[in-house]
Amino acid sequence: MERRVVVLNVGDFIPEEAYAELFNHAEVAFYGRASPEELRRAEVLVTFRLTREDLQMMPNLKVVQILSAGVDHLDWSSIPEDLIVCSNAGSNAIPVAEHALALLLAAAKRVTYYDARCRSGDFTRDRTTKILHGSEIAVLGLGPIGMRVAELAKALGMRVRGFARRPRGEPFIDEFFAYPDVRGALNGADLAVLALPLNKHTKGLIGYGELGAMKRDGVMVNVGRGGVVSKPDLIRFLRENPEFTYATDVFWSPEIAQDSDVAALPNVIATPWIAGAFGHPRVYVDMVRHAVSNVIGYLRGEGLRNVVDRSDYV
Amino acid sequence: MERRVVVLNVGDFIPEEAYAELFNHAEVAFYGRASPEELRRAEVLVTFRLTREDLQMMPNLKVVQILSAGVDHLDWSSIPEDLIVCSNAGSNAIPVAEHALALLLAAAKRVTYYDARCRSGDFTRDRTTKILHGSEIAVLGLGPIGMRVAELAKALGMRVRGFARRPRGEPFIDEFFAYPDVRGALNGADLAVLALPLNKHTKGLIGYGELGAMKRDGVMVNVGRGGVVSKPDLIRFLRENPEFTYATDVFWSPEIAQDSDVAALPNVIATPWIAGAFGHPRVYVDMVRHAVSNVIGYLRGEGLRNVVDRSDYV
Repeated sequence: MERRVVVLNVGDFIPEEAYAELFNHAEVAFYGRASPEELRRAEVLVTFRLTREDLQMMPNLKVVQILSAGVDHLDWSSIPEDLIVCSNAGSNAIPVAEHALALLLAAAKRVTYYDARCRSGDFTRDRTTKILHGSEIAVLGLGPIGMRVAELAKALGMRVRGFARRPRGEPFIDEFFAYPDVRGALNGADLAVLALPLNKHTKGLIGYGELGAMKRDGVMVNVGRGGVVSKPDLIRFLRENPEFTYATDVFWSPEIAQDSDVAALPNVIATPWIAGAFGHPRVYVDMVRHAVSNVIGYLRGEGLRNVVDRSDYV
Repeated sequence: MERRVVVLNVGDFIPEEAYAELFNHAEVAFYGRASPEELRRAEVLVTFRLTREDLQMMPNLKVVQILSAGVDHLDWSSIPEDLIVCSNAGSNAIPVAEHALALLLAAAKRVTYYDARCRSGDFTRDRTTKILHGSEIAVLGLGPIGMRVAELAKALGMRVRGFARRPRGEPFIDEFFAYPDVRGALNGADLAVLALPLNKHTKGLIGYGELGAMKRDGVMVNVGRGGVVSKPDLIRFLRENPEFTYATDVFWSPEIAQDSDVAALPNVIATPWIAGAFGHPRVYVDMVRHAVSNVIGYLRGEGLRNVVDRSDYV
């Protein structure tokens, strides 16, 4: 019997230990070095991106395991309906949640503001800081990243509101708001963290009215996707509400530099899409290991985690 | 029988509810408005500062309750040996520990570094970030601030080393190092938070060798007192180790601007002594309430918390 073929499209810098277990379950071919015959026989592809050419060269693909947690960058119209696509949600939840907390605290404690002043020799104090303990936070999106943010917020003594499409029973959510009641979740909140995927339900979900539902001196952190927030609405709101802070790791344009108008606003704190612990060797290894463990489950007939509902995107 | 007199030296902006309970236990006089006779009879003084003139006007003082957590600013040589001085340790532990975490995360995730670049339109990524989960942190000083930092570090999944003069059995300290083994506590650590008082045991405790005991790309946060660190040693170490970050809210000089040489270094993150949630109304109220509760305990004969050992300072 022919062995099943898995094609790995992972960087050469990934140590073999991250995927070695796969050799016990399938014939493994490496993208870029695989023969046309291996590609033709490929049943599973592990990759960040998926092109039309990939699909043509691999006509027998059944499962595509994406390496990133988000799958909004895929060209969904080109993907056949019967091809199963899995996201890698959860693979980098810990560093991304830590980054969300870093942005939240930088805004609440005005670290970037005061550091820039101290650096120039000005040690005067003219703006108050927030106490997180006892404050009200809305966590939008309760996948692995949002759940970890909620857990950390609870440890810091905040009251946590959760917002998602389906309720979650976890103990660190004090109050749950179901999609589409995003205004309910944000109403009067001191702080918010966006950890939502970008799909047809979430695109532009946060507009002028949603921003205005929060406290006027609120803090909104985005570690999900830029497109969840309406950019023109955000710019207008931030100009009108100088005490509000938007702290973000994610942007709208594929070339982030096109969003420098937002990053330059005085009440924005920005990092350039590094929440997944950019450059940290452990992250890529964890990402591949997490993806591969899902593929192994599939090969063993145990089913798949993180199967994407294409109707969220098409 | 004459009622016992407590003199309150607190700002006029403090609402009466913060100290109203005191009226049930003593005659309360307000500093600046008290009569010479009230001052002469005063048994307790609640204040930030204590001058020689205060001591002359209040010859019958038995207890001075300081409003700040630190008491290093007092002129200890002028304070009689039989006068009991209490600090207000614990009154602002929550905001200060949050600020320590804000500085720690700003350094680990390079928030100030990348925000300044993004602000100028440069979104390139050239420096890696740290993952706190699984990293090794040394918490120096295990008063209420240090213990809260240790608790939050544990919630973030760090391995926590504690350093203090006496061991603490709390579950979120994985390994304890007793004074003076500060190098043991710092040896190979990824991160460190200084939450030490400034006294004769801690002045200059952190020198070149102690900084060098940590990882070369380590992060040291200081929310205690600047003087715990040797300033010349720190400057030399930071110049020689550009990947090390010192993130601080505290400085050496009463006029912080004299320490702008440190704040201007590229591998320093600085905030101007705001960790106690500068300007936040709740903080001052909590501070007075915490101090007054100690005084009430004393008046009821239940003893005093936070009695300062003057031999730490004289």
